[in-house]
Amino acid sequence: MLVVMQTGATPEQIERVLSAVRELALTPHPMPGSTRTAIGITGNTGAVDGRPLEMLPGVKDLIRVTKPFKLASREMHPLDTVIHTPQTSIGPGHFTMIGGPCSVENEAMIMQTAEFLLSQGVKLMRAGAYKPRTSPYAFQGMGQGGLNILKKARKTLGIGIVTELMDTDAAEAVEEASDIIQIGTRNMQNYSLLKRVGLCRKPVLLKRGMSATLEEWLMAAEYIMAGGNYQVILCERGIRTFNDHSRNTLDLSVIPPLKAVSHLPILVDPSHGTGKRPYVSPMAMASLAAGADGLLIETHPDPDRAMSDGAQSLDFAQFAKLVADLKTIAGPMGRALC
Amino acid sequence: MLVVMQTGATPEQIERVLSAVRELALTPHPMPGSTRTAIGITGNTGAVDGRPLEMLPGVKDLIRVTKPFKLASREMHPLDTVIHTPQTSIGPGHFTMIGGPCSVENEAMIMQTAEFLLSQGVKLMRAGAYKPRTSPYAFQGMGQGGLNILKKARKTLGIGIVTELMDTDAAEAVEEASDIIQIGTRNMQNYSLLKRVGLCRKPVLLKRGMSATLEEWLMAAEYIMAGGNYQVILCERGIRTFNDHSRNTLDLSVIPPLKAVSHLPILVDPSHGTGKRPYVSPMAMASLAAGADGLLIETHPDPDRAMSDGAQSLDFAQFAKLVADLKTIAGPMGRALC
Amino acid sequence: MLVVMQTGATPEQIERVLSAVRELALTPHPMPGSTRTAIGITGNTGAVDGRPLEMLPGVKDLIRVTKPFKLASREMHPLDTVIHTPQTSIGPGHFTMIGGPCSVENEAMIMQTAEFLLSQGVKLMRAGAYKPRTSPYAFQGMGQGGLNILKKARKTLGIGIVTELMDTDAAEAVEEASDIIQIGTRNMQNYSLLKRVGLCRKPVLLKRGMSATLEEWLMAAEYIMAGGNYQVILCERGIRTFNDHSRNTLDLSVIPPLKAVSHLPILVDPSHGTGKRPYVSPMAMASLAAGADGLLIETHPDPDRAMSDGAQSLDFAQFAKLVADLKTIAGPMGRALC
Amino acid sequence: MLVVMQTGATPEQIERVLSAVRELALTPHPMPGSTRTAIGITGNTGAVDGRPLEMLPGVKDLIRVTKPFKLASREMHPLDTVIHTPQTSIGPGHFTMIGGPCSVENEAMIMQTAEFLLSQGVKLMRAGAYKPRTSPYAFQGMGQGGLNILKKARKTLGIGIVTELMDTDAAEAVEEASDIIQIGTRNMQNYSLLKRVGLCRKPVLLKRGMSATLEEWLMAAEYIMAGGNYQVILCERGIRTFNDHSRNTLDLSVIPPLKAVSHLPILVDPSHGTGKRPYVSPMAMASLAAGADGLLIETHPDPDRAMSDGAQSLDFAQFAKLVADLKTIAGPMGRALC
Repeated sequence: MLVVMQTGATPEQIERVLSAVRELALTPHPMPGSTRTAIGITGNTGAVDGRPLEMLPGVKDLIRVTKPFKLASREMHPLDTVIHTPQTSIGPGHFTMIGGPCSVENEAMIMQTAEFLLSQGVKLMRAGAYKPRTSPYAFQGMGQGGLNILKKARKTLGIGIVTELMDTDAAEAVEEASDIIQIGTRNMQNYSLLKRVGLCRKPVLLKRGMSATLEEWLMAAEYIMAGGNYQVILCERGIRTFNDHSRNTLDLSVIPPLKAVSHLPILVDPSHGTGKRPYVSPMAMASLAAGADGLLIETHPDPDRAMSDGAQSLDFAQFAKLVADLKTIAGPMGRALC
Repeated sequence: MLVVMQTGATPEQIERVLSAVRELALTPHPMPGSTRTAIGITGNTGAVDGRPLEMLPGVKDLIRVTKPFKLASREMHPLDTVIHTPQTSIGPGHFTMIGGPCSVENEAMIMQTAEFLLSQGVKLMRAGAYKPRTSPYAFQGMGQGGLNILKKARKTLGIGIVTELMDTDAAEAVEEASDIIQIGTRNMQNYSLLKRVGLCRKPVLLKRGMSATLEEWLMAAEYIMAGGNYQVILCERGIRTFNDHSRNTLDLSVIPPLKAVSHLPILVDPSHGTGKRPYVSPMAMASLAAGADGLLIETHPDPDRAMSDGAQSLDFAQFAKLVADLKTIAGPMGRALC
Repeated sequence: MLVVMQTGATPEQIERVLSAVRELALTPHPMPGSTRTAIGITGNTGAVDGRPLEMLPGVKDLIRVTKPFKLASREMHPLDTVIHTPQTSIGPGHFTMIGGPCSVENEAMIMQTAEFLLSQGVKLMRAGAYKPRTSPYAFQGMGQGGLNILKKARKTLGIGIVTELMDTDAAEAVEEASDIIQIGTRNMQNYSLLKRVGLCRKPVLLKRGMSATLEEWLMAAEYIMAGGNYQVILCERGIRTFNDHSRNTLDLSVIPPLKAVSHLPILVDPSHGTGKRPYVSPMAMASLAAGADGLLIETHPDPDRAMSDGAQSLDFAQFAKLVADLKTIAGPMGRALC
Repeated sequence: MLVVMQTGATPEQIERVLSAVRELALTPHPMPGSTRTAIGITGNTGAVDGRPLEMLPGVKDLIRVTKPFKLASREMHPLDTVIHTPQTSIGPGHFTMIGGPCSVENEAMIMQTAEFLLSQGVKLMRAGAYKPRTSPYAFQGMGQGGLNILKKARKTLGIGIVTELMDTDAAEAVEEASDIIQIGTRNMQNYSLLKRVGLCRKPVLLKRGMSATLEEWLMAAEYIMAGGNYQVILCERGIRTFNDHSRNTLDLSVIPPLKAVSHLPILVDPSHGTGKRPYVSPMAMASLAAGADGLLIETHPDPDRAMSDGAQSLDFAQFAKLVADLKTIAGPMGRALC
């Protein structure tokens, strides 16, 4: 259920509603808007009896939410959510580029990549210090050492950092090192981890599980939001089908229905989605045209020598070409590339 | 194997190669190009012994084809194929729109739709006289009566006709009534039907099977081409996955790998691909951005009263809006909308 | 809708109901049972107004059918259907084996296989004269010559023949040569072909499409039954999924829900389902345990030299071992192997 | 790489090989067999140079392992692994039943279920204290209180406990309370969790991910084994496909290829696999026939009032009937039900 406050409701009136919700043994989620505040309610198993709330001063309306996801639904939050980092923002009007290597390999390549990205106007860099690898014998990432390199790049160059969190143990360290905390595909339904990042104060980029339905994906977002962290960014990265022409099947068709039911922004990762360098740029263009809010693109100073995912990484020239191509259609589509 | 003739090879030299191929109990497929002719060879089970051919006058080169599809491969035909109809063409430089209702319902609505399409600059109209329906008790199309209406629209208004052929019995009638013969998803591996349209003299639009791999799809095209009809247009229309957010999962990710291995043009049908009206336009935009050669879009004067597929049909205003939106990005992408 | 006649209803009473149905512009399907006759009604688009029927003499009850498939549903026909061929039957109490090679290769191997099967108590042999092949350049079957060999085997040895029909042109010839007409996976939604075999007087074995849902499969059966041929046998042969451990994913889990909603018998083809010889026998055992009515098993005198599908064919010793193994659990499960 | 020791190799010889492996900066995994010991080697990225090892006293042979999974492969460990719990064992010759409710709901129902299972000869009970639920607002399990109830059932009645571990924080508590630690579908690629149970001293039941290939599943097992815990039991529980006739698509076809490449035992969970009560028993029978080593079956004293998964739980009478039915075919298949 959603409590919509009147325009001009006082802080005291809002606080009184929050208390009343808690007295019902439910959880209130205040969501300030430009003209009025709404208060989402979760924690109920059946329908909420709204009578104790609707008579409170300053309450304008009660709205029943019909989806299994509540906080992630457009019913609760009709306007598109904008996510802010110190460097940039993600949401309507923007088309946000995030570039960088699969893994932090050493300081030099991170600095080189960050400088390149900034030269292209890209404000956010992705790079993994903790890497989920199919084989226990494969390179698992540099760990804390990798985080330190990322922190140095941020401090020195001012680039925003997107990096993956794989378990609750590393949550503090990853939150400190990052501007956006990434939850990977394989952990989309790792509920303990989702609850943990629900307590973080940094935005969370939630990749879609390999065979997650739209509803399951939004329910995973709901786990994070139910913990109080409403800054969730979704990221499509390819689903598993019978197709063998690419590593995964990039599902751009999920974007319009997602936008219809949820207010959360959605990025696309065509690097993992296709798994093959020549297919990344066309699918990046298509992502923009389909209505995505931005891209995650793997780029590496020397892709053929990358420690992981080189086959799907663009080199700097290819990345720069893509940025230029995106700009030619971003303008007509009302999006500013950043 | 592909025999590449020298620039300036004479008709007699070409004819002599064709004869030599037939003497090897193989099938030659002459493919005239702008500067030289190539001759594809099929019918071999193992490798062809090219020695009797390479010494013939006018022969420049022999090229081994490594894919299971031969005539459909870019190895045989490096340049993109352009398909011509009396009204327009499909292939590089163009972005070809095909609009129209799911079924021919009556003469008035076909005339009305054709006039609308022409007013938008659209030269080809799709409409089914024979309809493959999941239920034997559902409307199966107007049959020959429907073809007659389509012929009248073509004769009166000059619009090109795309209509589906479901069985060999109707092949002559459908070929006569159409400018492009459509083979539906469910018949993509109906090999008797593919062989039959291989004998037709009209281009064939071959929809992808619901769970066809890229290779299976091109092998289906190969069936048509092996019969001598090289004018094949591919059409992505959604595959079957676990997704429940749309009727099918529109697989735009197939476009770049398809373009890499084949010279055939590819259209996208986001109407069947999504099954829901609000999702058609964003996926149409994305199709253009991903590198498709055109679109099949269901449009109907009154979608809510359509006899079939109304839920995925655009009304005329929505179609006109889509055409305008496509134009804003077609130009920057080097495509002329037609 | 289903009209259930009283026990002891006279032929005249039944005929009068049939006439009354036809007067409503609908199609009656009389289904004689051991104690009473039922009459299925199809052809309606909305609900049938049963009032003109329920007062007719001899009518016991009218039953509304809620599934989109009518004649194939258990609502219309509560008891399991038994299919009879001159050699054996398929349905409850039996577990029917059908063995044989993928293709008719020559007379000797067909005779040798037929004799072997009969020595094992197997009464039905499968072998293709018309072969749907992914490549137009692959062996397409012996055609009419193959049918002639099959007819000779039947006449000489008395074995029943199961062979595939690929198009309407060959329908008469295939019907004449076979005891059961097979419709292949790729033609499951070739509606023209389904309508054609609906006019045949031989049972039809309908393979499941590669990505057909249970309902789509039964709707394909309905196409055949709506034409008047009620002798439909379903055959699960593997579906298309992301799995790469076998050629297809044999879906035994479809058997219990199929039995719940339909009265038609179901066979399993673990040869195509797995595509690999060592996996055929375990999945054959599992098919019996899951409740299937029989098996299609590829067997060949010399699998490694088979012209098609050798990798999934059992040799005779492996087939005989499988028959023996099946017998050990068929008895406890109340099934007689035949 | 695998080092096979001679029959009669001394502990000192074995120890010397272990040291030599460590000197190469690799990890040795000693695997004692009935007649000789083998030592698996992991940690190499390329091929291991075996020369320093093959000359050591007591070494019989070096075997290169070709699969990406090493410790889980049959190359390393040709004989089937048998898993022992204090109550029973899982592996060849046995067909091990594990029954019980989805969740621990209260002490009474756990005791009642345990007594029922023991009366049927079933020695292992499954029940979740920590429940991964799609919705953050759904019942998440009783947690430590649930574990205490399970411990009481084990202590009082002697039944073995199988219960799920969802995160590393609860690892000690779950290990203490259980005889087999379950890792759920959604955590199959939660690598931090897999590494953690690799340090446990209890067997681990690893459910297959919803869209995991056979290789990915075995790589997940490898994560556990690489940590030193070689007691891994695999559990098929349905994969995600386009099918809508059941909750998931139970993939029995994975069993034969799994047995071909791995020595690990495999159970089947037809309750989650089908999601519907009437389909559980036929698929349980089929699992046995396909070669599985046992079953996980949800059973509840009053399924219609279960707090979770009631629709797929058998009541006690249905469970007892299933046990009786399984026995009729287990004997002929050389399996003792336990």
